[in-house]
Amino acid sequence: MKDKIKIGLLGLGTVGAGVCKVLTENAHEISQKVGRAVEVKTVLVRDVNKKRNIVGDFVITDKIETILDDPEIDIVIELMGGIEPSRTYMLRALQSGKNVVTANKDVVAEHGKEMFEAAESADVDFMFEASVGGGIPIITPLKQCLTANKITEVIGIVNGTTNYMLTKMTKEGMDYNTVLAEAQAKGYAESDPTADVGGLDAARKAAILSSIAFNTRVTLDKVYVEGITKITPQDVEYATELGYVIKLLAIAKDSPENGVDVRVHPAFVPKAHPLAAVNDVFNAIFVKGNAIGEAMFYGRGAGALPTASAVVADVVDVSRDIVNQTFGRIRCTCFEDKKFCPVENTVSSYYVRLLVEDQPGVLGSIACAFGDQGVSLNSVIQTRRVANQAEIVVITHCVTEANLRKATHVLNELPVVTEIRNVIRVEKSQEVN
Amino acid sequence: MKDKIKIGLLGLGTVGAGVCKVLTENAHEISQKVGRAVEVKTVLVRDVNKKRNIVGDFVITDKIETILDDPEIDIVIELMGGIEPSRTYMLRALQSGKNVVTANKDVVAEHGKEMFEAAESADVDFMFEASVGGGIPIITPLKQCLTANKITEVIGIVNGTTNYMLTKMTKEGMDYNTVLAEAQAKGYAESDPTADVGGLDAARKAAILSSIAFNTRVTLDKVYVEGITKITPQDVEYATELGYVIKLLAIAKDSPENGVDVRVHPAFVPKAHPLAAVNDVFNAIFVKGNAIGEAMFYGRGAGALPTASAVVADVVDVSRDIVNQTFGRIRCTCFEDKKFCPVENTVSSYYVRLLVEDQPGVLGSIACAFGDQGVSLNSVIQTRRVANQAEIVVITHCVTEANLRKATHVLNELPVVTEIRNVIRVEKSQEVN
Ligand SMILES: NC(=O)c1ccc[n+]([C@@H]2O[C@H](COP(=O)([O-])OP(=O)(O)OC[C@H]3O[C@@H](n4cnc5c(N)ncnc54)[C@H](OP(=O)(O)O)[C@@H]3O)[C@@H](O)[C@H]2O)c1
Ligand SMILES: NC(=O)c1ccc[n+]([C@@H]2O[C@H](COP(=O)([O-])OP(=O)(O)OC[C@H]3O[C@@H](n4cnc5c(N)ncnc54)[C@H](OP(=O)(O)O)[C@@H]3O)[C@@H](O)[C@H]2O)c1
Repeated sequence: MKDKIKIGLLGLGTVGAGVCKVLTENAHEISQKVGRAVEVKTVLVRDVNKKRNIVGDFVITDKIETILDDPEIDIVIELMGGIEPSRTYMLRALQSGKNVVTANKDVVAEHGKEMFEAAESADVDFMFEASVGGGIPIITPLKQCLTANKITEVIGIVNGTTNYMLTKMTKEGMDYNTVLAEAQAKGYAESDPTADVGGLDAARKAAILSSIAFNTRVTLDKVYVEGITKITPQDVEYATELGYVIKLLAIAKDSPENGVDVRVHPAFVPKAHPLAAVNDVFNAIFVKGNAIGEAMFYGRGAGALPTASAVVADVVDVSRDIVNQTFGRIRCTCFEDKKFCPVENTVSSYYVRLLVEDQPGVLGSIACAFGDQGVSLNSVIQTRRVANQAEIVVITHCVTEANLRKATHVLNELPVVTEIRNVIRVEKSQEVN
Repeated sequence: MKDKIKIGLLGLGTVGAGVCKVLTENAHEISQKVGRAVEVKTVLVRDVNKKRNIVGDFVITDKIETILDDPEIDIVIELMGGIEPSRTYMLRALQSGKNVVTANKDVVAEHGKEMFEAAESADVDFMFEASVGGGIPIITPLKQCLTANKITEVIGIVNGTTNYMLTKMTKEGMDYNTVLAEAQAKGYAESDPTADVGGLDAARKAAILSSIAFNTRVTLDKVYVEGITKITPQDVEYATELGYVIKLLAIAKDSPENGVDVRVHPAFVPKAHPLAAVNDVFNAIFVKGNAIGEAMFYGRGAGALPTASAVVADVVDVSRDIVNQTFGRIRCTCFEDKKFCPVENTVSSYYVRLLVEDQPGVLGSIACAFGDQGVSLNSVIQTRRVANQAEIVVITHCVTEANLRKATHVLNELPVVTEIRNVIRVEKSQEVN
């Protein structure tokens, strides 16, 4: 028996440095819990000459072989990010019998199957708690704690950048471009914010969460994605007036009738819903299951230390497996083939904001156009007169996306309709509190 | 290798019936995850002749030996409640090499050590996720997912009965006795509600949570307990006016300077704190750690199916251990001896409501009396004149309990003070959202 568990760390950026700090500061407790000391032995970086403000008794290298060929290293932590070379390095680590822990949502969402299979063949662990929700425990809760449930719904605020932006827009009435610039200045948004504001980052997390929740593989191409770029201060104001807040949601639903429905888009969330109070860079994941009813997991979705909290939790879990010589206790659970719900068949309530001619009978003809396409209206508000135009906002009852699209198509052709300014889904998930 | 995992179930009441239902309805998914079918073989009840509306292919008995002596049974689930005979039956089950899963907070809080030791000697699992927070995953998250943290604070709403009552008092202005009667009529409060309203139930859960969070054994006698029986509609109203809600909190803090401080008492919670929005029978546990920052776990703290969700999750975990022949992977983590903070040394901000003579200078002499004992005031409101008396409400800065007690003692002696009507702690835990 080796007296210490040794780690090879790939990447020493934000999260990598956080992991070193947590392993050092909490070393005593961790070794008590595992029964052995757990230490970083070797770190891979791109540039070995970069000045780094990290203390630690490890070797820095730019050769992956230094880690992969070292028989003393039992655990590889991947924190470089991006698909390549992360994917290849992790596969090689698994194939050489090393356990792998990662925070890389890109690889887990797009190449998860390959990773699980490599881990299973080599009889080692592959863990990725930090890939969704940063520090928030959600992968282990789904795989273990809620495992007795048929999970029917997972709704998450899983992107901190956009949640920060939408919170600012709601609380301070800022517009999209101003708030994006501010988020970039504060380091909450990257210089290329496309993956965040466009919804791709959340879509990857939605694919990971729904695969686990529904026991079936949900690939990224099955996730319908819309970002927050079209949200205006007017939409935010109407939401507030109507008793909602706008959030970018990752929504995953599973029902025997409709199949699996996974989407990322902005949505009106009723103020009484627990997710409505999740502000700034915080993340939360709301889960419904046939035994537990509703549960929610809330916390910091990013940042060096919160993310390291999740990474090191996985490291401790793997270390316990090493001490007990029991790997792959909890395997990939995608054991079912389920049908997917095409986005046209998804059912939702919608907010539609239209600019129309301000003349008698216009409300009636709009209501008719909706009705003719099978879209019934829950409420209609007419406000904000602009010259001889008026804005009309409608909230529909639950209708199919197909019918809603037909209705907006017809409306676009009506002479009294100048413009359909926005269409946003209204999340009707039962209020629980 | 046996082809099925067989369970002996002690108790077929609310939760027992829920467990049977979940194991039956979700049997397919559970067997896929475990790799074997998991079934209840034998059920122990008090009265075998009672008519029961539960379907299931199991034997009902009133002889514990039928279960303990059955070598086919690998897992015993205890859902009878109370200390005896539950404690003895669980010990005997552990000693005869069976894994034990329980929802029994009484036994875990008061005899946990004995249970862990018996499990460790016999090399079997002892699991108790359902003993705190019903369906909410909190034991596993603390033991596994947050294990990389030094946890400094756990604050929970862990008693559904009192949270329901306080929510009603806040939203509908009901008084304590009316709301208690209503809770009893609805089945949310027992006919003898002492353990709930007096805080004992929450104290047991606080002992369990803090033992795990702080890696040290916190016995029930170390938990300071106050219930909600003295909360009046006036206190609730003042709380609302001042921007707070009153909640019964289980508070556990650990710091190198003060030691471990565990208490259950009503408290003013700032409306912006995530716990303030936890209403009705919902429970939530808020955790602070040196890596994760803040996290919160929210859900249904009781009920047949939510509680069964947690019990069956433990059963699946144990079953995975049976399949992999690896028990006690995660042992009791009370490996430290920590000093405790006597309640006199605890530091808090306080709300104090006094009935005083309505005469000039009274405010000054009260402020002086506080000041002389080292209690500085954050705010003072004088309202609600009653005849020639007035009510004064003060919120103190953070002071020691000892100083606060000295101050209220002196105030009680002042001729202008008719009565100290209530003293309630104000939870100042940093607002995070
Ligand atoms: N940041 C967060 O809050 C957060 C939250 C959740 C998940 N994550 C995930 O965690 C991972 C790491 O994120 P991060 O923010 O820590 O990234 P980062 O700060 O950009 O750090 C990346 C590190 O990887 C190294 N690296 C990159 N490419 C490499 C290559 N080809 N060969 C060797 N080393 C290479 C870099 O080396 P040099 O130092 O030499 O440049 C750097 O040390 C990503 O998958 C991210 O999605 C991050
Ligand atoms: N109810 C909840 O929502 C909830 C939530 C969290 C935790 N829990 C915990 O779960 C446990 C069970 O609660 P519960 O509400 O299900 O209790 P319950 O409805 O009162 O059921 C108790 C069951 O145990 C049996 N029993 C009691 N004493 C026995 C004895 N000496 N010998 C044999 N059988 C005996 C009873 O048999 P008969 O049917 O013959 O009377 C009954 O079936 C308790 O520890 C409780 O604290 C409950």
